[in-house]
Amino acid sequence: MGPMAAVEGAVLREFPVRQLVTTRWADNDMYGHVNNAVYYAYFDAAINSWISEHLAVPFEQMEAVGVVAESGCRFLRPVSFPGPITIGFRIERLGRSSVTYALGVFEGGDPSADAPASALAHWVHVYVDRATGLACAIPEPLKAAMASIAKVSE
Amino acid sequence: MGPMAAVEGAVLREFPVRQLVTTRWADNDMYGHVNNAVYYAYFDAAINSWISEHLAVPFEQMEAVGVVAESGCRFLRPVSFPGPITIGFRIERLGRSSVTYALGVFEGGDPSADAPASALAHWVHVYVDRATGLACAIPEPLKAAMASIAKVSE
Amino acid sequence: MGPMAAVEGAVLREFPVRQLVTTRWADNDMYGHVNNAVYYAYFDAAINSWISEHLAVPFEQMEAVGVVAESGCRFLRPVSFPGPITIGFRIERLGRSSVTYALGVFEGGDPSADAPASALAHWVHVYVDRATGLACAIPEPLKAAMASIAKVSE
Amino acid sequence: MGPMAAVEGAVLREFPVRQLVTTRWADNDMYGHVNNAVYYAYFDAAINSWISEHLAVPFEQMEAVGVVAESGCRFLRPVSFPGPITIGFRIERLGRSSVTYALGVFEGGDPSADAPASALAHWVHVYVDRATGLACAIPEPLKAAMASIAKVSE
Repeated sequence: MGPMAAVEGAVLREFPVRQLVTTRWADNDMYGHVNNAVYYAYFDAAINSWISEHLAVPFEQMEAVGVVAESGCRFLRPVSFPGPITIGFRIERLGRSSVTYALGVFEGGDPSADAPASALAHWVHVYVDRATGLACAIPEPLKAAMASIAKVSE
Repeated sequence: MGPMAAVEGAVLREFPVRQLVTTRWADNDMYGHVNNAVYYAYFDAAINSWISEHLAVPFEQMEAVGVVAESGCRFLRPVSFPGPITIGFRIERLGRSSVTYALGVFEGGDPSADAPASALAHWVHVYVDRATGLACAIPEPLKAAMASIAKVSE
Repeated sequence: MGPMAAVEGAVLREFPVRQLVTTRWADNDMYGHVNNAVYYAYFDAAINSWISEHLAVPFEQMEAVGVVAESGCRFLRPVSFPGPITIGFRIERLGRSSVTYALGVFEGGDPSADAPASALAHWVHVYVDRATGLACAIPEPLKAAMASIAKVSE
Repeated sequence: MGPMAAVEGAVLREFPVRQLVTTRWADNDMYGHVNNAVYYAYFDAAINSWISEHLAVPFEQMEAVGVVAESGCRFLRPVSFPGPITIGFRIERLGRSSVTYALGVFEGGDPSADAPASALAHWVHVYVDRATGLACAIPEPLKAAMASIAKVSE
């Protein structure tokens, strides 16, 4: 899985942004663990919550929006309601119109810096002009915020 | 709607139990507000999270489980991702095998005691013996915890 | 529960509109039955799918949108993934700006006319002008379609 | 992304199993398209619905259960409520205890054999003994059914 640099053994300190997520009863499936699809809803919440802090205008007024082009996750050990979890992420690759996040899922609301990831994921957003539907540059000041948590800028 | 005693104008101080819920990107629907069905997932999370603190054994080992017999909600003003919300609740009616919760939805992660509810709901759990499927007494020590946040015990 | 005229014992023939809903693995909760909050997502799907057939313009171009003001459900017997279900509904009350639906949940993709409801619900939409946020008249030709499945027009 | 053999340009005829999925109002996000996390709920529904037809006993009585070890999806063009969609899949790799599915998302309830995929995904299930938590052989008769839709058996 090419763009996913994070590997088993990854710990929280590798992810500079951390977002609390409260789990929900219905996140657990018939086997008593959080359903795999729900992890992606956690990632969506964590990434977009962080993005919302770095926008010049609210989501609904943005001319350029981030569309998910690809995502993927490896599930290492289960997490479960009712405990809270922490999503950690960094930016793995930052291009003109696309950005790749590396994410980790960590048990608890305040895990220690060496807590091991329960799942590891990657997530590619491509910025698209809402009017034309064509790829466009990631808008400022969001791009500058992304650069500050990126390993490599292209 | 008979069992819903909470009325428009209700404020946070009327609800002794408070649970933080983090919203998610996908909670918002096409109109940019939290979808109505998602409120019920918030209630489920808040009630079951509180219940989990008052069980003698984990959910999956319980002999008697709470089955939702009825729920209802009035939506007074919208809430939206990315802000957190607080679910407040109390017990409105406590019977041998059934319990009615009154709930309110409040904007923010730490609303003031006189914050107005954005939505008001009721929720009826009936306790059922998992083996027989028949209604049974609410197990202790959960029942004692319920009584401590109840207005009226029958 | 005032506006919910449908009562236990209701059968499919009482609901002129029927919509197929395929269940999903994650609809089932830890107890192996469809989670209560998910029923409301079924209702939302069934009602809005029917509405979409009676609009002059797509949802995102509508000037007046239906906002859920109240909903409620009584759960009579559980339904479960993987079986499909059928949502039946009629209009219970049709006003100038608000409409109340009565809904039933029925097991299977093609239940017989005398199949008993597994759950009964009501659902109130208030039409709101998107620009002003004020209540407004239900737009035509949707209102005419509603009248055709209504018991009583006010 | 190693295990995902399906490539852009894939069409429905490459996927021998097809499952109808009805979309829901809340599947659409603020941009009016099905939210990325929801695609994984579609995959879960499609795969587990097919599996349920090939089990010797119901899910809840199975001694060996399929746990999702990895998933990934590339989103090629959006799909939206209210239209139904079809999930097509085949088995890409079949091992002793693990199985990799290749999946495609197709618009409509009855797409033609040369309909192009709107999204392509892979999905890895590892079978685990519920009592011990250790990887175990995929149970029969499910394994035989898998072999019948597999390209390669290891």
